[in-house]
Amino acid sequence: MDDFLQFGKQALASQPFSALVGAELTGFSPGWVELTILITPQLKQQHGFVHGGVISYAADNALTFAGGSVLGPAVVTSEYKINYLRPAMGTVLIARATVIHSSKTQAVCRCDVFVVGDGKENLCAVSQGTIARIGQSSETQAYTDAADAKSRAAD
Amino acid sequence: MDDFLQFGKQALASQPFSALVGAELTGFSPGWVELTILITPQLKQQHGFVHGGVISYAADNALTFAGGSVLGPAVVTSEYKINYLRPAMGTVLIARATVIHSSKTQAVCRCDVFVVGDGKENLCAVSQGTIARIGQSSETQAYTDAADAKSRAAD
Amino acid sequence: MDDFLQFGKQALASQPFSALVGAELTGFSPGWVELTILITPQLKQQHGFVHGGVISYAADNALTFAGGSVLGPAVVTSEYKINYLRPAMGTVLIARATVIHSSKTQAVCRCDVFVVGDGKENLCAVSQGTIARIGQSSETQAYTDAADAKSRAAD
Amino acid sequence: MDDFLQFGKQALASQPFSALVGAELTGFSPGWVELTILITPQLKQQHGFVHGGVISYAADNALTFAGGSVLGPAVVTSEYKINYLRPAMGTVLIARATVIHSSKTQAVCRCDVFVVGDGKENLCAVSQGTIARIGQSSETQAYTDAADAKSRAAD
Repeated sequence: MDDFLQFGKQALASQPFSALVGAELTGFSPGWVELTILITPQLKQQHGFVHGGVISYAADNALTFAGGSVLGPAVVTSEYKINYLRPAMGTVLIARATVIHSSKTQAVCRCDVFVVGDGKENLCAVSQGTIARIGQSSETQAYTDAADAKSRAAD
Repeated sequence: MDDFLQFGKQALASQPFSALVGAELTGFSPGWVELTILITPQLKQQHGFVHGGVISYAADNALTFAGGSVLGPAVVTSEYKINYLRPAMGTVLIARATVIHSSKTQAVCRCDVFVVGDGKENLCAVSQGTIARIGQSSETQAYTDAADAKSRAAD
Repeated sequence: MDDFLQFGKQALASQPFSALVGAELTGFSPGWVELTILITPQLKQQHGFVHGGVISYAADNALTFAGGSVLGPAVVTSEYKINYLRPAMGTVLIARATVIHSSKTQAVCRCDVFVVGDGKENLCAVSQGTIARIGQSSETQAYTDAADAKSRAAD
Repeated sequence: MDDFLQFGKQALASQPFSALVGAELTGFSPGWVELTILITPQLKQQHGFVHGGVISYAADNALTFAGGSVLGPAVVTSEYKINYLRPAMGTVLIARATVIHSSKTQAVCRCDVFVVGDGKENLCAVSQGTIARIGQSSETQAYTDAADAKSRAAD
């Protein structure tokens, strides 16, 4: 496995919520990311489809990692929107995000979320959003400060 | 507890993913909903803040329940956008959504997400989106058909 | 010129605001549209760039026409989001939209807006939204009813 | 008229596109703005309603001025989303925007757009977006550089 993907996998593994959802980074290169989630019963809503919150998580996190692939690891999602296209029924959820435009401090990315069922991928949601490098503005400085305070407290 | 809230709590309880996240419906009346999540370690990202995916889940689901409070229980989120305002650090996450405008088939709603810390509520995200009644259009008929097929298969 | 494009051009010509902005339909086929606007001084903001409102108009209308290319002419934009990527300086604005997913009643589309300058196209905004067929739901019935009332009043 | 509103009116007057649309700043204070547009035939689409592009312009510009009311005049809209709620028929369009959260470099704002008809205001669109101070990041530095280059060229 290449170093870039390995680095991304470690970053994802450091997120407890991503472990709870069972997300795996299956592709990661500058400007592109693929996040894969095995669909388990606990990820569903009352009708048996994947819960929208899981699809949102996948889109949000894929966007973040796409942004991070060009901005570095210290990034947060500033905002995004998502359109759900069809009920997500199947065995695996795959979110693929790409960087559309980036500067030193932020990246605008798009993400397509697919559900694998009946042997093929079906597009079930599309998303678009902004990823910001933290510590580069007063806006995101709050994240850095809070993380620093947390680190010092843990010493 | 009033019947409306009780009904909403049952709907939320029927969502495995909401149980996994630990969401609780703490307020529910026509046009308004409050969703509360106790912040546990497994809901965090690598810097110790609540993971954006959890905040998105809370906004998405609060929007859905707000829409459902006026459209009936058979609803799905069609689309929404979210802006994250500050890192979510604290003990409890509260998402409050209201219906801005509704017709027979859909509702446009807004949601504010707060994190409770240091004894006060801090706004950490704002969201806006569309909730659609399923089975009312070819778009959402797919959800109804899929759910029906699932029910029949389970007989 | 093919009939489909001709039909689209007539639809655009029937919009007084599109005439005011000077928009021209330069490409139109099922699932795809290209809208072109010559950048005149009156379309700018105070710094000499194309006003965001013009870029929004272009994205909104390209999304609507893309939706209409598969849903028929009686459509409205339900919602969309737009990210501005860079200042739009140049001679011509081009908005290209495609249908990502459609049903009988609505279509989810994406749009890229380019500004032509220094002999090349530069992406200056990206957009994503939902187009709805009117008269197919109580939501959009209001548009049909209002248009009908207007027609009768004009008799 | 107070100085703040007077200052805002001058800023709006410096935008050729706002003059073309006929927008007027009717309220402006830190964190709040009201933009009013007299509905003329040239602002409509083919069914006689106000064109969505005009409503988008109003929302976009109201969001920008709201952000500018707390960040200073050198701002741009980074992104926003809008939901159209009903056809805009009437005599006057009013967009009111408020700042939800701001830092030194950006502000997240919401906007409600009303159409005045039959003697009352009807909510016809809701919007939410991010306003950025220009020249504060590499992202927005492009706007400052371009404006500077333009100024020097004009000397």
